Order: sequence, then C-alpha cells, then structure tokens
Amino acid sequence: MYEYSHGGNAVFESGKEDIIDLSANINPLGMPKNVRDAIIREVSNSDRYPDSFSKKLREKIAEFEKVNPDWIFCANGTSDIIFRLPRATQAKKVALTAPTFLDYKRSSLSFGSEIIQYKLSAANGFILDIGFLETLRMEFPCLVFVCNPNNPTGGLTDLILIKELLDYCQQRDAWLVVDECFMDFSEAADEYSSKVFLESHSNLIILKAFTKLFALPGIRLGYALCANKTLIDNFYFHGADWPVSNLAQAAGIAALEGAESFIKQTVTYVSTERRKIEKELTRLGFRVFDSQANYIFLQNPHPFDLWEELDKRGIRIRSCKNYSELDNSYYRIAVSTKENNNTLLAAIEEIL
Amino acid sequence: MYEYSHGGNAVFESGKEDIIDLSANINPLGMPKNVRDAIIREVSNSDRYPDSFSKKLREKIAEFEKVNPDWIFCANGTSDIIFRLPRATQAKKVALTAPTFLDYKRSSLSFGSEIIQYKLSAANGFILDIGFLETLRMEFPCLVFVCNPNNPTGGLTDLILIKELLDYCQQRDAWLVVDECFMDFSEAADEYSSKVFLESHSNLIILKAFTKLFALPGIRLGYALCANKTLIDNFYFHGADWPVSNLAQAAGIAALEGAESFIKQTVTYVSTERRKIEKELTRLGFRVFDSQANYIFLQNPHPFDLWEELDKRGIRIRSCKNYSELDNSYYRIAVSTKENNNTLLAAIEEIL
Repeated sequence: MYEYSHGGNAVFESGKEDIIDLSANINPLGMPKNVRDAIIREVSNSDRYPDSFSKKLREKIAEFEKVNPDWIFCANGTSDIIFRLPRATQAKKVALTAPTFLDYKRSSLSFGSEIIQYKLSAANGFILDIGFLETLRMEFPCLVFVCNPNNPTGGLTDLILIKELLDYCQQRDAWLVVDECFMDFSEAADEYSSKVFLESHSNLIILKAFTKLFALPGIRLGYALCANKTLIDNFYFHGADWPVSNLAQAAGIAALEGAESFIKQTVTYVSTERRKIEKELTRLGFRVFDSQANYIFLQNPHPFDLWEELDKRGIRIRSCKNYSELDNSYYRIAVSTKENNNTLLAAIEEIL
Repeated sequence: MYEYSHGGNAVFESGKEDIIDLSANINPLGMPKNVRDAIIREVSNSDRYPDSFSKKLREKIAEFEKVNPDWIFCANGTSDIIFRLPRATQAKKVALTAPTFLDYKRSSLSFGSEIIQYKLSAANGFILDIGFLETLRMEFPCLVFVCNPNNPTGGLTDLILIKELLDYCQQRDAWLVVDECFMDFSEAADEYSSKVFLESHSNLIILKAFTKLFALPGIRLGYALCANKTLIDNFYFHGADWPVSNLAQAAGIAALEGAESFIKQTVTYVSTERRKIEKELTRLGFRVFDSQANYIFLQNPHPFDLWEELDKRGIRIRSCKNYSELDNSYYRIAVSTKENNNTLLAAIEEIL
C-alpha cells in the first residue's frame, strides 16, 4: 500500500485523538474564528459549482500580496500546484536541493523529469549557497525549486542568491519556483520574500499556503504567484477544474480580513516559543539548526530514537529519515502552543 | 485567458444571483440536511490535516457499493481522478467517443497521449455500438473511456457491449474506464452498472461522484473503483496528497447514511420530471434524444439560438457547441425542480 510520506497524520496513524501532533507545522494560534464562521455561512451554497477561477478570492489575495489578481492561481493546497508544475512548464529536467520538501521530487517523477539534486552541507547548517548556481550552469535544468525557508530545516536563502538564480534562469528560459509556504512565520519575511522580483522576472513562481499560517490544513488551500499569464493558463489546463471548493474560497477570503494583525501576533508568539525550545534543546545537548520558520530542526546525538521515545509519551514529531541526505538522527518539531511545547520539553528531560 | 468549458458557472458568469442554472446537472432535491449538519460539525477539525487515505469514508463507500475498501480511491472531485488517470496508467494512446465528457481529452492532452476519437452517430441517437470495439482492435489504445450514461447525451451503453470491450482490453493489458457519475439517476442503474465486472476484470476502473447525486458540487468529492491495487497506489502517487478535505470526507460519510431512500426518491422525481419535459419539448418540435440521466439532450430545429433566447429570460442551459461532433443546435438541459422546469417550458413556449 502507498505510504504516508509527510507529517500531520498522527491521529489517523495512532488512532489516538489526544496525541500531541508536532509532526505538522500548523499555526498554534489556531484557525481564526471569523474563518470558521465564514465556512459555516457558505455551506448552504455548496449545491452549486464553485467558481473555477476563484475570482473573489484572487482579488482578496491580490490586495494582501499587493500583486495583480491575474498573477494568482489558487488550488487544492499547494501540493496540487506542485503536481501541476512540471506539466505546466514541460520540465524535462528539474533541479532540487537535498534535503527539501518531498513533493517536488514526486511530482517531477510523476511527469518523468530527470532530477538533479544539489546536496546542502550539514557543516554549513544546510543553508543554500552559490554552489547551487554552479550546478545549474552545468546541468541546464528548466525548472528549479528553492524552498524558502527550507523544509525541514527552516533555513532562509538570502535575496542576493535568489536574484542570481533568477537572472541565470531568465537567461536560459528556465523557471525558478520559490516555495514561501512558511515565509510569513518568519520575523524577517519582508527582507527575504522574493515577491519584489515578480514584476521584473516573469520566470519566477512563488508558492504560498493558507494551510499553515491560518491553521486550516483540513480545508486545502494554496496559491501561486507569477507574472507570466501563459503559465497561469497552463496551471488551469493541466489539472482538474474547480480545484478550490466553495468552502475553501470563503475561508481564504475571511482569513485575509485582518490578516496583518493575526500574522504579527503569530510571528511574536512563534518566535518567542521557538527560541525557548531551541535554547532548552541546545542545553540538553541536541544540535539545533538555525530555523526562521514555525518548526525546529535538530540532530540527536544521544543513543536513543527520539521519535520512538516521544511517541511512547503521546507526542508525535517528524522523523526526517525519508528526506534525501538526512537520516533518523534528524528531526523536525513544530512550534506549538506554550502548553504543548512545555509538555514536549518535560518529556525530553524525562527521557534523558 | 484560459476559458471555462463546462456548465454550472451561470451565477459567476452572469453576475446574477437569481439566474436559473440548468447548465449543470445537480440533484433537484438538493443537499440532504444531514450532510449540511455533518459539514458544520466537522469545521472545528479543519486545523489538522485530513486523512490522506480517507479511510472512514472508503469504508462507508465500500458498504454502499458492496466492494472492498481497498478498491476505492477518493479525490477532489472525479475531475481530479480523470487528471491522474493517464499518468497512473502511463497511457500513450487513449480512445474516446465523440461526443463525450470533455475532461478525458484534456487530461490525455496534458499527459501527451495520442487520442483516438470514435464518432457516435446522430442517426443512431449517439448510442455506443460495436464499431467502437472494431476501432480498438485496429488502434490498440492502452486507456479507453466510456461515459455511461454518456455526457451530454444521457444515452446508456448495455452491459453486453461493456463486457466485450472489457474482455478485449484485458487481453491487451489495456484499461477500460467506465464513468458512471450519472448512473444512479437512472431507473435502470442495476441493469447497467459495470460494477458486476470489478472482481473478474481488474482492468476496469469505474468513476463515481457525490457532486451530482447529493447536490454538493461546491464540496468536491468523487471516487474510483478498481480491483487492481497497483493502480490505486498509482492514483496516490500521481497527484497531490490530501486530495479530499476533511469537510468533504465528513459530507461523503453523511451522504451515504440513508442514501438508498434518498436515491429512490431522486430517481422517481427526476424520471417523472424528465419525461414531462421531454414530452413537451417533442410536442414543440425539438428533436429529443433518449436520456436515462438527470438531463435532457436535444437538437433545436427552429431558426433561433435557444441558449440566447433563454439567457434573455434568466435561464441558463448548456450549449453543446464545444463538444466534438456537436454544434450549437445541440443543447443539454438539467432536470431541475418542478418549478424551474415549468418556468423553462413556459419560457420556450413564449419564444416559439
């Protein structure tokens, strides 16, 4: 049977409703109340097809992102867009970093693309470096994925390097995808988002998700930003019509009402908690990498399996053993509510 | 800009909330109340990922369809499955009828398949005949689509022909897809469903939808039945994870509670109304084809554009001009509520 390859399935896998699931990186502040209300209000419209083109939602996103609504494509989660990408770009050769989010590879394999993996160095904290550009210059991929901040490491790539990658790709008619699904959790989002290049580089595709930031992974809603209208048309062509349910469209519109203060509150909460956990884990001898996202990435030097020990105590974290270039000494742990984070730290102290 | 190619978008296209939309074939009895309640109850669980494998929903479908739960794949509408199909079967050559549902062709083009179209004859009421099998014998496609009842014609293909197609495909390691999305609206569903062949023919893939029967197109929920487990695994592999939102899973489970009496009621209502409309339209000089679904398929011999005339009167029907082998003299009209159907007939009388 086909296996789960992501986090976030602790309740279904364990059958335990009360398990603390830190294997998926969902905003600990939870789904805003007005989003829940908007979904409930929209249920009575579910007897007609949703707007295939998510017009109202795109207008709202355009306002939030300060981009043209025609540059936006909305889908059934960012995962849906990742699977349309190799087809929409007819990508015979794809370049990825290792480690990075798993679905880029699967969607490329599904299309039949050749895959080039650029190994990030543990010694360098798995931060993307100029060697990636050198690899592109040798390999000529037509589609390049950069996850920023990276998943599972949480490391950011600076805009100087992104600009160099973009310029190179533009010269060679290649596409650069920057997956910013976790960017809005970072205190430095404004300095690191590639959005500033959308207008000058129509070969740039930015991916974003409502899933994590607004804590609605059950609803499925993600979007892509790109100034190339042919690519947007190709996204529509290469996948199911009506990708976004009417409930998800309503949820997205509601989420963006008052999003600014919700995001500010989220960033403060998550950063404070992340630092607290990182400090504690460092003190306890773990190798903690510099994450700017709402998750912690660490290596366990102790002679026990952290996943198993925490699982026994009703806490589920994400083992990174199925990521390229990582093994089961690496873990990703979501920054959750204060209460859950303290339970986690207490459990780890107990294990040690 | 990418163009919308289906019905069901009358409100978004016209901007009129009160337009009577007969361009999409949705159950006129509407979404069952317990489905609405189940969705609302589930909203509070949307802050975690849905079950990727829709386990509880599959168990419920298995009970309803009387098949093994492992033979079921659930997705974001049947359209999502249609787009996974050419990749999941690696279909280099695809055979379709003309006319038929448009997405088979688009998904095949998206994969890069060669497409063989078998022309259905207007003189024969667009009913599928043995000539299709002869075409398969000459062309050797690896994926064959039969829509039963066909969309937009509503015509049924009998099981003797389906069995011959299946046997032939089995010999040649080819897949036969039978799209039964509208089958449950037919009084003769039991005699025409290909389900009886699932066990003996693991090359049979049946498509079904909650969308139409339970009037929840906004929610997005469809499924495939197939006894070949490798194919089911391939469906998972060749598309986004978490295809079905938690709300759609809850809606599907609720819809199947008491589904039998709801379907019986639906079939009686729809058949009675369909016959009434067909009789009237025949009397008014239209060429009405034999439909067993919840829509009427007709040709207009009068010197006016029926779509335009009805649109002026606030009624939207489906022009069939973008279907292969049809033109703008052909129309598909959904069987709606008594009130809407009477408004339609009165409007047509007025036009004449």
